[in-house]
Amino acid sequence: MSCVVCFGELMLRLAPEGYRRFVQADSFEASYGGGEANVAVSLANFGIESRYVTKLPSNELGQAALNSLRHFGVDTRFISRGGKRLGIYFVEKGASQRPSKVLYDRAGSAIAESELSDFDWDSIFNDKVQWFHWTGITPAISDKAALLCEAACKKAKEKGITISCDLNYRKNLWPREKAKEVMTALCKYVDLCFANEEDAKDVFGISGKSFEDVAAQMAGQFGFSTVAITNRQSLSANDNGWSAMLYQNAGDGAKAYWSKKYDIHIVDRVGAGDSFAAGIIYGRLQEWEAQKTLDFALAASCLKHSIEGDYNMVSLAEVLALAEGAGTGRIMR
Amino acid sequence: MSCVVCFGELMLRLAPEGYRRFVQADSFEASYGGGEANVAVSLANFGIESRYVTKLPSNELGQAALNSLRHFGVDTRFISRGGKRLGIYFVEKGASQRPSKVLYDRAGSAIAESELSDFDWDSIFNDKVQWFHWTGITPAISDKAALLCEAACKKAKEKGITISCDLNYRKNLWPREKAKEVMTALCKYVDLCFANEEDAKDVFGISGKSFEDVAAQMAGQFGFSTVAITNRQSLSANDNGWSAMLYQNAGDGAKAYWSKKYDIHIVDRVGAGDSFAAGIIYGRLQEWEAQKTLDFALAASCLKHSIEGDYNMVSLAEVLALAEGAGTGRIMR
Amino acid sequence: MSCVVCFGELMLRLAPEGYRRFVQADSFEASYGGGEANVAVSLANFGIESRYVTKLPSNELGQAALNSLRHFGVDTRFISRGGKRLGIYFVEKGASQRPSKVLYDRAGSAIAESELSDFDWDSIFNDKVQWFHWTGITPAISDKAALLCEAACKKAKEKGITISCDLNYRKNLWPREKAKEVMTALCKYVDLCFANEEDAKDVFGISGKSFEDVAAQMAGQFGFSTVAITNRQSLSANDNGWSAMLYQNAGDGAKAYWSKKYDIHIVDRVGAGDSFAAGIIYGRLQEWEAQKTLDFALAASCLKHSIEGDYNMVSLAEVLALAEGAGTGRIMR
Amino acid sequence: MSCVVCFGELMLRLAPEGYRRFVQADSFEASYGGGEANVAVSLANFGIESRYVTKLPSNELGQAALNSLRHFGVDTRFISRGGKRLGIYFVEKGASQRPSKVLYDRAGSAIAESELSDFDWDSIFNDKVQWFHWTGITPAISDKAALLCEAACKKAKEKGITISCDLNYRKNLWPREKAKEVMTALCKYVDLCFANEEDAKDVFGISGKSFEDVAAQMAGQFGFSTVAITNRQSLSANDNGWSAMLYQNAGDGAKAYWSKKYDIHIVDRVGAGDSFAAGIIYGRLQEWEAQKTLDFALAASCLKHSIEGDYNMVSLAEVLALAEGAGTGRIMR
Amino acid sequence: MSCVVCFGELMLRLAPEGYRRFVQADSFEASYGGGEANVAVSLANFGIESRYVTKLPSNELGQAALNSLRHFGVDTRFISRGGKRLGIYFVEKGASQRPSKVLYDRAGSAIAESELSDFDWDSIFNDKVQWFHWTGITPAISDKAALLCEAACKKAKEKGITISCDLNYRKNLWPREKAKEVMTALCKYVDLCFANEEDAKDVFGISGKSFEDVAAQMAGQFGFSTVAITNRQSLSANDNGWSAMLYQNAGDGAKAYWSKKYDIHIVDRVGAGDSFAAGIIYGRLQEWEAQKTLDFALAASCLKHSIEGDYNMVSLAEVLALAEGAGTGRIMR
Amino acid sequence: MSCVVCFGELMLRLAPEGYRRFVQADSFEASYGGGEANVAVSLANFGIESRYVTKLPSNELGQAALNSLRHFGVDTRFISRGGKRLGIYFVEKGASQRPSKVLYDRAGSAIAESELSDFDWDSIFNDKVQWFHWTGITPAISDKAALLCEAACKKAKEKGITISCDLNYRKNLWPREKAKEVMTALCKYVDLCFANEEDAKDVFGISGKSFEDVAAQMAGQFGFSTVAITNRQSLSANDNGWSAMLYQNAGDGAKAYWSKKYDIHIVDRVGAGDSFAAGIIYGRLQEWEAQKTLDFALAASCLKHSIEGDYNMVSLAEVLALAEGAGTGRIMR
Repeated sequence: MSCVVCFGELMLRLAPEGYRRFVQADSFEASYGGGEANVAVSLANFGIESRYVTKLPSNELGQAALNSLRHFGVDTRFISRGGKRLGIYFVEKGASQRPSKVLYDRAGSAIAESELSDFDWDSIFNDKVQWFHWTGITPAISDKAALLCEAACKKAKEKGITISCDLNYRKNLWPREKAKEVMTALCKYVDLCFANEEDAKDVFGISGKSFEDVAAQMAGQFGFSTVAITNRQSLSANDNGWSAMLYQNAGDGAKAYWSKKYDIHIVDRVGAGDSFAAGIIYGRLQEWEAQKTLDFALAASCLKHSIEGDYNMVSLAEVLALAEGAGTGRIMR
Repeated sequence: MSCVVCFGELMLRLAPEGYRRFVQADSFEASYGGGEANVAVSLANFGIESRYVTKLPSNELGQAALNSLRHFGVDTRFISRGGKRLGIYFVEKGASQRPSKVLYDRAGSAIAESELSDFDWDSIFNDKVQWFHWTGITPAISDKAALLCEAACKKAKEKGITISCDLNYRKNLWPREKAKEVMTALCKYVDLCFANEEDAKDVFGISGKSFEDVAAQMAGQFGFSTVAITNRQSLSANDNGWSAMLYQNAGDGAKAYWSKKYDIHIVDRVGAGDSFAAGIIYGRLQEWEAQKTLDFALAASCLKHSIEGDYNMVSLAEVLALAEGAGTGRIMR
Repeated sequence: MSCVVCFGELMLRLAPEGYRRFVQADSFEASYGGGEANVAVSLANFGIESRYVTKLPSNELGQAALNSLRHFGVDTRFISRGGKRLGIYFVEKGASQRPSKVLYDRAGSAIAESELSDFDWDSIFNDKVQWFHWTGITPAISDKAALLCEAACKKAKEKGITISCDLNYRKNLWPREKAKEVMTALCKYVDLCFANEEDAKDVFGISGKSFEDVAAQMAGQFGFSTVAITNRQSLSANDNGWSAMLYQNAGDGAKAYWSKKYDIHIVDRVGAGDSFAAGIIYGRLQEWEAQKTLDFALAASCLKHSIEGDYNMVSLAEVLALAEGAGTGRIMR
Repeated sequence: MSCVVCFGELMLRLAPEGYRRFVQADSFEASYGGGEANVAVSLANFGIESRYVTKLPSNELGQAALNSLRHFGVDTRFISRGGKRLGIYFVEKGASQRPSKVLYDRAGSAIAESELSDFDWDSIFNDKVQWFHWTGITPAISDKAALLCEAACKKAKEKGITISCDLNYRKNLWPREKAKEVMTALCKYVDLCFANEEDAKDVFGISGKSFEDVAAQMAGQFGFSTVAITNRQSLSANDNGWSAMLYQNAGDGAKAYWSKKYDIHIVDRVGAGDSFAAGIIYGRLQEWEAQKTLDFALAASCLKHSIEGDYNMVSLAEVLALAEGAGTGRIMR
Repeated sequence: MSCVVCFGELMLRLAPEGYRRFVQADSFEASYGGGEANVAVSLANFGIESRYVTKLPSNELGQAALNSLRHFGVDTRFISRGGKRLGIYFVEKGASQRPSKVLYDRAGSAIAESELSDFDWDSIFNDKVQWFHWTGITPAISDKAALLCEAACKKAKEKGITISCDLNYRKNLWPREKAKEVMTALCKYVDLCFANEEDAKDVFGISGKSFEDVAAQMAGQFGFSTVAITNRQSLSANDNGWSAMLYQNAGDGAKAYWSKKYDIHIVDRVGAGDSFAAGIIYGRLQEWEAQKTLDFALAASCLKHSIEGDYNMVSLAEVLALAEGAGTGRIMR
Repeated sequence: MSCVVCFGELMLRLAPEGYRRFVQADSFEASYGGGEANVAVSLANFGIESRYVTKLPSNELGQAALNSLRHFGVDTRFISRGGKRLGIYFVEKGASQRPSKVLYDRAGSAIAESELSDFDWDSIFNDKVQWFHWTGITPAISDKAALLCEAACKKAKEKGITISCDLNYRKNLWPREKAKEVMTALCKYVDLCFANEEDAKDVFGISGKSFEDVAAQMAGQFGFSTVAITNRQSLSANDNGWSAMLYQNAGDGAKAYWSKKYDIHIVDRVGAGDSFAAGIIYGRLQEWEAQKTLDFALAASCLKHSIEGDYNMVSLAEVLALAEGAGTGRIMR
């Protein structure tokens, strides 16, 4: 069985109950999440062996974060322990015209201040590993983390492991200029690039007359063999349209595949992009055709919107059922 | 005052909070419910004397289940006590494209293993009793329960009591073939048959070009004087259309009555069919005209969708107000 | 800096969790609210010095009510303490076709039984005070309260303070006839009158072919320089349309300004009118143009619908962002 | 089977969660209780037919209060409906040196303002009724209620029904002088009087060198055939000693019976006296000997301290087990 | 590193909140537990590789149960999936004189109905495995489970693996006679036997003048090299004394070791015996001296009483600190 | 009226529910606290004008922290806004032999990185200010904060304001050596010094044969006119003894005053020392005699142990009642 390695930051996620605002909160729901960890959990839920790499403090919060991954069967043996603190993010759920809000409190986290010596990439990328996934958040959290990211990419490339990256631009973590510089350097290692409708412009300044055009430019500039772009149509904090495009630059020419659009009533939209990425990776590992892969990934991420927390707690069977046409929400008993 | 007897299984209902999935649940909301008990509670809330018959274990859970009925004034004096366990069902609330899910854990329950000697139908159907209601779930839970159902029907018929049955096909309880065989035998006692848009096909293999056609076939085959069919249009787990048809096969010919359609934003849809059945029974006991009866029943079941739990906790006045045209949801103060 | 005085009743608000009905409630969420207090909190959140005047019992519940205002920086130094009880209101959240329901339990409250001597209006309306706001609920709670209201209006008028009143007709507090009589007398002090689509008819028997027509009649009859009318289009308990009109009767003729309409998915609609009034008052204090004032007020009250409790916990920046065109609910991080 | 009638006020009980103070409460646990209702529920839990008489408002809160009694099988058919409001009491749980605190908000309740015509005592005290129980709280809530109490006592006496009264002096409801006057008049109807260690002095000014002495004086002065006195030794809000004495003034001379003392770790002490009274009444209805009756009643009330809410939710078997010597709290499985 | 295998039943544990009774419960806290699983989790928390073997249904509840073990790093790869249901136990927390109560609803569970073919003991007991632990509950749940237990013991013995058994007599699962017969046959494989102060008598009819005497008889009769007996002194449901004795029957003669006694204020006492067993196993794997092993095990189980749920969520460092003399509960910051 | 200024760090406090451990937490109760803020709230609750000075981030969490102080009437106008983050502390409640545990996550907080220019001490210490209080935590959080502390002390001294300091040694914030150096320099400004039984040794290396001896050495070395020492006797995480000594070094010689000892059943012991300090300051502002001041302060801090959260939510009347002899915890109604 193949194994996927994900590398990034795992945070404590604190959310006021229901639609309460931060200033009303007398309690926070606590869970754990982070772009790459979310992908690792999704893949583990689909039955893929997934391995998550990060650094977590040696205290109880670090342990709880690690446990949250073991819970779903993610391999946590290569997580480094130590450092000063666990990154935290606060999220307030929006409603109607009031947007959801995220406050990051992640500076100085264990992974942001980790050293190259904390990770033995040679052991991490052992023979079973076939895929390496990271996101644009990882190099953004600190210069050290960017170096780590590069070291990992180099080693993965060296070993012939497929590398995917989700651009995931976060304006509060770094300015556009720096993002462009760092990501341009790192993207040369990347085979498959994920982006949403704004990332390409935010990070690389690439825009185009269509998603296909944008993907073609990205593929051209960085040599991506595949570009996957999700498209969120935000009607309100409760109701979104959700679709995606998969652009494949195969030997015999490039081709774009288009998904259907889901009209979604949102329970929790954080992690939707990650659940999409996991779906694409899963399809590729199964060597499915592009359209089937895209439909599966979009179905997975559609379901994510109905689930509280960062992690996409759905089974393979549930995603397949939706991808193959369910979706009326009729009760199952 | 007339009295309605309902007979079936009452279960502990365990539901994760909000939209949480089973695998996320660190607590379950506990309530009690079951098709026939739901009808009994609805009728009690409308001011009808209702009597519920089942068997419950002698332990605290059995007592709590019984108390949940006394709470609303249902007559519980004929409930038999004993047996090994209380049936349980777990329900996970769906959202958007993710369907609600029910897990039954009811095998070996007190009622499933009850004996004919546990019930004295002659006393249960005393002079006040005018109506007997059961559903297709009861004979499905065990062969013993099917025998009990037959005994009750026979006695009720003997005493001239009107009998209604809701087909309520549950594929996890019995296969279609067995359902057909058993229900065919039992339906000969039934005056009024409730079905949803799929039951007739699932149980009897009856389909038709319209609901009216299906009802006519059912009435023809089993001699039902009335057939009531609800029609759920499932747009998503949150949004449903809801309407119904009432088919009356009176002496002077058959006639179908059609309801309006409600566009419903769902809080909890379990028990909607039961609340509809209770509405029809109520209208019949009041000797209302068919159209008024249908409108009342649909309004009652429309409101059920806005209420947590199996039981339809609405008053007669609230249902009448909606049936007569309210429904904009404007605040009342 | 200018100061706004609000005068009225502050109540304990008890609401069953989520969509639970009163008869299901085994706990109540507790907060505090009341028409005029809601305006005071909104203004404090916008950075305006606001002063709230009422009478609260000397017990812990009275203290908790007072604390809820200090929490947001409202000046509570002129609140009188004493009397027998704190008014309470119970609110059950509606869903779909089931309306929200309010049960008042406010008879005999400290403010309803307060005396003229409980308040020193001369001190309350000190030099900083520029605006006085009250609603039609205050004179409705008791004859004593109506007298107090009149005393306050007189003193405010004497000092050249702008007076605004929200008609806020509550049929359970007084009959239409009495409301008309008392409000007619009090409205002669009022400069700016707020109403919803039904108040003008309920209180004054004024109806018209359009909102502008109604406002013109009101302005004509009572000499209001401004009339602001909100318009709720109730599709269901979950979904409402929300818009407003501002009618200005300036020296050079009258003019009506119209807002856009928001399609709102409701979290909690109590206090929406109050948040609108606070928005208008804020715009006027900033000497904004009428259209900007109206747009700001409607945006503020649009956001209120997404917030649990009576108080509109939004910042100036958030309201401005919506008024200036945000509103897609896209996540902010 | 014999039937016991209890008459008094049933209130909504609102308690902050855990040990939170009123000023911290953002939610209240809601239940229902009141001295006489607590006795009725205890008796129903022991299998006695108990009938509760009061007046409750016609709104949803009144209905919920009524349902809370039906839940346990109490006969609620003679409850009058109407009036303005449901009485409320707020209770804050003490800990260590901080005492529990009760805030009454019961003025103007339906029962306080009920009329003689609201109750048909002749029907209420039908042939099955053997016992009538009320407490000193009932005549304290209003003059009307005191008259009602007298009317009930007269009718009960006339029918040869045993009457018991728990003095239950509440200093916030009436002054000592008035209590003495009213209770002196009413106690002439009473056969069995319950008191705690302070009531006799508070209400009648009776004190003595021992509980036996006090009981003898009470029996002498009012002709009680039995006096039962509970003795609470308050070490802290968490830890109490709990014992009791039963004084029987039989034909052949008076005799005092003494219980053991329980060292109790308190979960909720409200309603302990009521659970004791119910235990004594139960023993008397069973015609148990005095010592067995006392031991049973004290065991019942000992268990009450371990149960949240006013109602003593214990079974006959549980009380008997403790009365007969269990009490080590060893787990049962 | 050595590996410990535990085999038994893992159940869903449902507990009303706080001190609420079953009949009051409107929600249940959900967790997972079972004697042998509790030992596996304890060992994993101490850093030992532990492997848990059972059968769980293929549904979401079975998955959640399995996840609860992965959460703590227990190896779940040998858990068989299938069967009809997950065993459930309900537990109500006692207080003061009211005992805790357990209701088992485990009949027909997947493990109770599992077959020999569900487990490949040869693979399970691979080269790393040094220890095998089971309890008297496993053979009690069904005859099939008893056969499985025997098969596992045989294979473990064959491979030279140390076997420990906790007698854990449960009177609701089997009668004393059957327990004696089955356990006598199985105990011949056992090296280390755990018992509490009642088990030896309940299962084997062995009593004695002291714990040492009882242990000597057990060792004599069954050839146990070690017998460990815990001693609970139940003052109330809240306060217990807790101590233990370790009896070693080494080559050079038998010796008994005695622990100190802890005075414990209980949070949750379920699983205390299991946490003790895990402590003894840990000490033996570390080859600690008997007294140190005993002190460690008792400290571990002392801490378990302060932790909600079945699993003992304490670290090695915390247990060592208590075993070495901490225990004043002074805050750590 | 006199005014007290408190200066230090205000943190978000996150605590798992009940006795749950960090690794079990799926939610955290959120409140706000910090040594000096706790003193400010206590004094405000006693009716003293208290002013709190710190720096809080401009985001919603900073606002919520500030609101928590306004809630109790603390003057927050001199709080500086800005910086990167709000300090956080996690606290897990201990039970029995398991100690409570605090995890600090406060590095890089707004106040830790604030500049001298953030505060205008001349305005802060205006004419009304009579007292300035800080604790040893403030200079420990950063070198910048230590400088700020010194600047504040200098200005206060200059203005003749009384200065009190609670040593509050925290080993995780700084080593003993540094604490000694910095605190020695700062303590020369201090008039009244608070310490617990360990602080004097931890910070200054002062130990003695008695508390009086220790206090005398401290007074001698630093010129404190008053030293107040609390004494916690930790029996378990639930049960503590609590007493204190007040050492006054008046013109006519030194004298020690001793309190009684309270046996406390703990709800939440965080902030107990702060509530004691507030009591002493209150007594001194009232110019009470030393013994009365000490008794009041100890009673206040005794009650704090019964209250959830950092803030001591008790009234003056409640503290006086306990100081004057109440304390049996008998219910008040």
